[in-house]
Amino acid sequence: MGNDAQGTLELVREQVQAELVSYLTLQREYLSGIGSELIPVCDALESFLLDAGKRLRPLFAYAGFLATGATPTQQDIRAMTSLELLQACALIHDDLMDKSDTRRGKPAIHRHFENLHQSQTLNGLSAQFGEAAAVLLGDLALVWSDHMLHTSGVSNDSLLSALSVHDEMRIELMAGQYLDVREAGEKTPNVDRALRIARYKSGKYTIERPLHLGASLAVTDAKQRSNLTSILSAYGLPLGEAFQLRDDLLGVFGDPSVTGKPAGDDLREGKRTVLIAMTFERATAAACDELAKYLGNEELTSSEIERARLLIRESGSVEVVEELIEGLLTNALQAASSEEISPQARELLVLLATSATRRTM
Amino acid sequence: MGNDAQGTLELVREQVQAELVSYLTLQREYLSGIGSELIPVCDALESFLLDAGKRLRPLFAYAGFLATGATPTQQDIRAMTSLELLQACALIHDDLMDKSDTRRGKPAIHRHFENLHQSQTLNGLSAQFGEAAAVLLGDLALVWSDHMLHTSGVSNDSLLSALSVHDEMRIELMAGQYLDVREAGEKTPNVDRALRIARYKSGKYTIERPLHLGASLAVTDAKQRSNLTSILSAYGLPLGEAFQLRDDLLGVFGDPSVTGKPAGDDLREGKRTVLIAMTFERATAAACDELAKYLGNEELTSSEIERARLLIRESGSVEVVEELIEGLLTNALQAASSEEISPQARELLVLLATSATRRTM
Repeated sequence: MGNDAQGTLELVREQVQAELVSYLTLQREYLSGIGSELIPVCDALESFLLDAGKRLRPLFAYAGFLATGATPTQQDIRAMTSLELLQACALIHDDLMDKSDTRRGKPAIHRHFENLHQSQTLNGLSAQFGEAAAVLLGDLALVWSDHMLHTSGVSNDSLLSALSVHDEMRIELMAGQYLDVREAGEKTPNVDRALRIARYKSGKYTIERPLHLGASLAVTDAKQRSNLTSILSAYGLPLGEAFQLRDDLLGVFGDPSVTGKPAGDDLREGKRTVLIAMTFERATAAACDELAKYLGNEELTSSEIERARLLIRESGSVEVVEELIEGLLTNALQAASSEEISPQARELLVLLATSATRRTM
Repeated sequence: MGNDAQGTLELVREQVQAELVSYLTLQREYLSGIGSELIPVCDALESFLLDAGKRLRPLFAYAGFLATGATPTQQDIRAMTSLELLQACALIHDDLMDKSDTRRGKPAIHRHFENLHQSQTLNGLSAQFGEAAAVLLGDLALVWSDHMLHTSGVSNDSLLSALSVHDEMRIELMAGQYLDVREAGEKTPNVDRALRIARYKSGKYTIERPLHLGASLAVTDAKQRSNLTSILSAYGLPLGEAFQLRDDLLGVFGDPSVTGKPAGDDLREGKRTVLIAMTFERATAAACDELAKYLGNEELTSSEIERARLLIRESGSVEVVEELIEGLLTNALQAASSEEISPQARELLVLLATSATRRTM
């Protein structure tokens, strides 16, 4: 039975990839008609979107659609695939704001355009050009995501039903992103605030809203799907938090070959994650003082990273976070076992939940 | 008769202002419910949107609607007002990319948040916080513009009809912005390329597409409005270029109390405008060499600005640009005199055309 869900997951990924290829081909034609200067924009976005990506958000949208008992058509999958373009905007702007050098093991978009500017010895400042390009490529990806949804070919009723979920999701995303950026301005980490950020950035944006979007494409009457919507929230919100907590652990302890980010990247960035906030709650004053010196230090050496990791482990926060993940996963799986959810959807939801929190996907 | 059009213009501006106030009030309620940290975001966007703005794009959309012979309802005006939120995104991201300090005589959004960070002695780098906030406030304004359009209350047919114009407009905007940023990388200015940028950034985005958007809300069948669409393009494209050419002149010679930007701001930024490209085509080699030293020099003194202005004037490019504006305006006015356009719309189009190119508005 698990094999069926795995097969579905792989099939959806292939379909998402094919939809992206076909959308981006059309857009390349359109933009290169305006001017050949836009070809590097198409190249960069194609590489960003097609070379990698777990397609998590379209997969959750697919599961939300299946949960209604219906099966998505190609048009529905196209509509869901638009979430990958929104995510591209979020990542491109995120890397710009964090001044991250890499994404998925390759130069971040602002670095890529900075490099292009340099290698072509263009006029002006390379870094400023790279940053401007990242602002605009993110904006373009955001507009494309909308356009791809609007032109997906789903019925007008499905489209109108999806738009309200889609808008709310995007407002929540931007609010969550701002809270995250603002949190770095606080003098000390805080578990409650970090959990709230995890709820908006991951619980809602990555999981709950994509599930709702899928369901809203299948059942266009909000009242008719309200019961299912609640169950999907009961699955998606805890799972999203668990997903973010796993991300926090990977950001400190993850293998660069898996994460696509340098080792200890979150430490170097000084990210105010739940893991870090819990460490500060639990560690000795001396350990907190020492850890504070490492966090946000961009020149961190590998031995300092090792030392910071040890301080985090010694505080016991890693076990607490692992337990929290298990508890949240249990809640999510319990919601997925509801009889309101079609058996086909349930299998996929279970597979996605375990993959997202164990990160074997 | 001209007084009627002036009255319409003022009335529409008031209605746009009222719709913005009511939309932003709802969004403030929503965001402050997520977290009080978002209140400065609401404050900044409210001040940005409500304290100033010529409301050009909603006004052109209104004229496009009137041109069909119909009269916009409050819902239609709400849908058109969403263009102000899109424009807020464009300006906020533009100032960030250009590293402009001011907008409409006040600190640009990235500077405003940099100042907030400093005055509240928050943790981290103030400039990086300011930039991140500008990325996110621009993104939020972009998403809001969509949301305001979707929730405007126009009929489903009108909304679906508007979406395709709206998407094309936004893709063109981002493409035009990229061409503009990329143009700064060229070794020498070029009139044709500068004109193409003016066409995308101003001809299409500021005028043609808002006109089409208005018409698409009133007449939802694209074939039925195709004749009118062409006439609106024949009015909007030349007018948009003329508008941009006026902007080029104001960017060099404008009074800071009118433009809201420091004197000679385009010189300091080294903007590759049509005016500058024409100057380089016409001026002596010695004048070109001297001017090149001033362009893009952020430390330009007021006597250097005066000197650059003189070199531009002496090349004769100012007269050529003024003649070009007159010619484009004549073309636009001729299109507006078409019998396909309702008399009420015609008066407004004439008023908008002269105001936009003489900039008395």
